[in-house]
Amino acid sequence: MHRTAVRKVVLENVLDANDALAQANRERFDQTGTYVINLMSSPGAGKTTLLERTLERLRGKLRLGVLEGDVQTTLDADRLARFHVPLVQVNTDPGFGGECHLDANMVRSGLTELPLQDVDVLIIENVGNLVCPAEFRVGEDTRVMVSSITEGEDKPLKYPLMFRSASLVLVNKVDLLEHLDFDMEQFLGNLEAVNPGVPHILTSARTGQGVEQWCSWLEQRISV
Amino acid sequence: MHRTAVRKVVLENVLDANDALAQANRERFDQTGTYVINLMSSPGAGKTTLLERTLERLRGKLRLGVLEGDVQTTLDADRLARFHVPLVQVNTDPGFGGECHLDANMVRSGLTELPLQDVDVLIIENVGNLVCPAEFRVGEDTRVMVSSITEGEDKPLKYPLMFRSASLVLVNKVDLLEHLDFDMEQFLGNLEAVNPGVPHILTSARTGQGVEQWCSWLEQRISV
Repeated sequence: MHRTAVRKVVLENVLDANDALAQANRERFDQTGTYVINLMSSPGAGKTTLLERTLERLRGKLRLGVLEGDVQTTLDADRLARFHVPLVQVNTDPGFGGECHLDANMVRSGLTELPLQDVDVLIIENVGNLVCPAEFRVGEDTRVMVSSITEGEDKPLKYPLMFRSASLVLVNKVDLLEHLDFDMEQFLGNLEAVNPGVPHILTSARTGQGVEQWCSWLEQRISV
Repeated sequence: MHRTAVRKVVLENVLDANDALAQANRERFDQTGTYVINLMSSPGAGKTTLLERTLERLRGKLRLGVLEGDVQTTLDADRLARFHVPLVQVNTDPGFGGECHLDANMVRSGLTELPLQDVDVLIIENVGNLVCPAEFRVGEDTRVMVSSITEGEDKPLKYPLMFRSASLVLVNKVDLLEHLDFDMEQFLGNLEAVNPGVPHILTSARTGQGVEQWCSWLEQRISV
């Protein structure tokens, strides 16, 4: 168990350092009045497609910006480039050692590329992973999770830290509901068990279902 | 960048320690003649359901055992208990600090609960995650990945280390193909780009498609 003890001390030191940098990011966001969403999910749950639908709907109403996190490639940033919003891709591999999450320092490095004073809402699309992204605050105002129904009902119980840290859960790919053995009631019960009272919206980034409701939620957060 | 350099040194030390423990696990597997598969995927890609189909088909032909890895809960082990094969659940949360992957030490701790001398094939179901599990060898003979088509075509490019380390890719949930905008040719091209020549099998754990082929692959590996 020696190794585990060492690992815990290392993790605590890393998280302390991260919190200090997250606070520094937070101060920058406060200076520019930028509201920041940390968007998290499994790989392939539909974060980028939901972002496409969000940018289509809110562009012109809100000044949006995006920070894309991925281990490798600029594929997601490339998909969003057509919207001509402030956009930066942070790869966690070169320079950051292939990390499975964004931390405050990586976000800080990406912020240098963004004109924050022109961004009302910054959406940070985290690396697809249901574990570590939840451990690292990056200075965000809120956390939104995308959970695809293709992943099964048990995910809130198996990855409770992630689901517990979300202020809103977008239950995505509901257009596939009739083709899956997915028990929505059971999923929502599991979600309620780990994060009582958390709101959710049923979405399909593909058909557009729920996108208006999600965008309204977002606009309400800004106007508060 | 100071923090990144420190993180890299820490990671290298951790991986060196892991390799030594993986070698110790390897020696135990060699002593008992146990063939070991490290099964990896995103959360909810269908590893456990594939295991159910595998145990249904191969139980009685091969002496199978399972080591289940999860951050929390024994849900997966509970699902497999009805097969009455040697089975152990390793939770990475209590005692291991909420790790997003199995490492050699966690596997070692689980092995004490398994009668390895009675197990021809041990399947290790790793934590659902496309990044870190690929960094940690646990003493396995081979790595098999499950990639669900619901996750999109781009995943091999975005998580290349994982796809590159697999000796076989089970392309799962193909029963949903007609309901998705999934381009199989593009996915297989991306897979070939990061892991040239790697074999794949189209599977549906739900309908049973491809399960026979996967089990044949497995039996061939044992008989070599």
